[in-house]
Amino acid sequence: MRINRKETAARLIEQDDILILCHRNPDGDTLGSGYGLHFALKQMGKRSRVLCSDPIPAKMEYLRGTETFSDFPPRFVVSVDIADEQLFGDTLSPYRGGVDLAIDHHPSNSMFAQETLLDAGAAATCEIIYHLLSDMNVSITQQIADCLYTGIATDTGCFKFANVIPDTHRIAATLIESGCRFQKINKQLFESKTLGMMELERQVLNTLEFHAQNRIAIICVTLKMLQETGVSEAELDGISGIPRKIEGVQVGVTIKERAQNEYKLSIRSSELLDASKFCALFGGGGHARAAGCTIYGTLSEVRKQILSALQEALSH
Amino acid sequence: MRINRKETAARLIEQDDILILCHRNPDGDTLGSGYGLHFALKQMGKRSRVLCSDPIPAKMEYLRGTETFSDFPPRFVVSVDIADEQLFGDTLSPYRGGVDLAIDHHPSNSMFAQETLLDAGAAATCEIIYHLLSDMNVSITQQIADCLYTGIATDTGCFKFANVIPDTHRIAATLIESGCRFQKINKQLFESKTLGMMELERQVLNTLEFHAQNRIAIICVTLKMLQETGVSEAELDGISGIPRKIEGVQVGVTIKERAQNEYKLSIRSSELLDASKFCALFGGGGHARAAGCTIYGTLSEVRKQILSALQEALSH
Repeated sequence: MRINRKETAARLIEQDDILILCHRNPDGDTLGSGYGLHFALKQMGKRSRVLCSDPIPAKMEYLRGTETFSDFPPRFVVSVDIADEQLFGDTLSPYRGGVDLAIDHHPSNSMFAQETLLDAGAAATCEIIYHLLSDMNVSITQQIADCLYTGIATDTGCFKFANVIPDTHRIAATLIESGCRFQKINKQLFESKTLGMMELERQVLNTLEFHAQNRIAIICVTLKMLQETGVSEAELDGISGIPRKIEGVQVGVTIKERAQNEYKLSIRSSELLDASKFCALFGGGGHARAAGCTIYGTLSEVRKQILSALQEALSH
Repeated sequence: MRINRKETAARLIEQDDILILCHRNPDGDTLGSGYGLHFALKQMGKRSRVLCSDPIPAKMEYLRGTETFSDFPPRFVVSVDIADEQLFGDTLSPYRGGVDLAIDHHPSNSMFAQETLLDAGAAATCEIIYHLLSDMNVSITQQIADCLYTGIATDTGCFKFANVIPDTHRIAATLIESGCRFQKINKQLFESKTLGMMELERQVLNTLEFHAQNRIAIICVTLKMLQETGVSEAELDGISGIPRKIEGVQVGVTIKERAQNEYKLSIRSSELLDASKFCALFGGGGHARAAGCTIYGTLSEVRKQILSALQEALSH
């Protein structure tokens, strides 16, 4: 059942021993929401702790700071930024079917919780948490401000993406007034790369090739590159964005080796091509501007196959 | 003489045939301020035009749109975002000593104009223009909002830098409400690279080397690379930032070939090294975290010389 913010605030005010769940492969929004809510509940004198199936990424460890959690049998379970129980991961699996309250901004939320506070217009779940804490009369400390800013910054690409609304900026303004260390946070989140990632970028740029009067750009990521650089498949999101960043490129293709003779293709496109329809030709799918598919064969066969299909598609 | 915003608004309201000057090598803030002010004056029924010694960068041409300027003998000259007449460039040189009003946010403004509206606390001159237009009862159209957003976004690295204040975000919120196309603008300003720049990055990454347990990272940019890729020296700013982005790197060095056996070095450092003091050893200077100097010799001699001096400096 959907409930509104005032009702949600009332639930949290009356409950104690609260377990907060974050989604697997955690990002800044689920962790910022989780820790922001935790520090708020602690300020209210309640016991709470944050649980996630995967560890906090090193660059976001400041969200937790030196906080340690006491163990207690939870009496109220809240999920933050989780659209579906499929995103629980192993550690959270005991709580399937057992979430009392979900706080989320994904329009696709599957309503798995007893009660759900959903605001699909919010750029980040941290925006919802911000207003919720105001309703609960929590004072926004620097620590809470750091958490909420992190979720907003990561989910909006630091205020760049289409999901930004005026409220996003107004919340950021008040978080800065609460002392959030936005410069340090942004530097850490957006201006720093591991040595392995830099080396991977170097290797990947050496595979960059152009076709169709530079309208198509292709890069390759092999298993050997991942082994050599220690970069995990989960960190490859930024890499797939490289080809389409080049001015004039209408279709950017990233060919990732998954296993011998198995390649996962990621296609980013301009309005000239519906990437989702294109990938459907190969049994894949996705969105109009970003989609993917899997093709089997040697790298040179796969490259040839995708290129000729793309040239065909662009010629219409 | 310094004047306040209300006085500035009064000046602009009483004047007509206004010439607006932008600084040479124009950035988003000087151009956004110039065009934003121009469109506002036009809305008020006044004649105005924008003048700059250098052309608008291609990625910011949307600021001007299809606007063409009529020629008229200026009766009032306003400079925007110009700290000193040294930044006029050739085309603006007839107006040295002839600026009636300067609107600026640089604390270093040399007070070259008859009257100056200076707010050194503003992250961008466009923030000052925003409040000024409110004082002048100008309605913020989409076109004006695009201009002002551009200046704010470019001068703050899209809200990432230390100069951001709460007002920066609050202005951004109202500009979005006025219809500014922030997503398109941000994509163009921050997410796109020329083919030449991408190729230069590729070549530069291939020169990347690490020393002193990966605390020192060095990259090289040769004249041959610039010739091959068509990238100008002015566009190299982003390149110099690459080495220090790597986690663990304390000193990032960019060695740029200027002429045969002449290299300009750019040093970016953490708190472990005062880059300005270090560069002074080679007759250079700058800021504590970013400085530069020129060294003569072959590339390998220069690299050896700077590396041994850095290792010496880091060993203290």
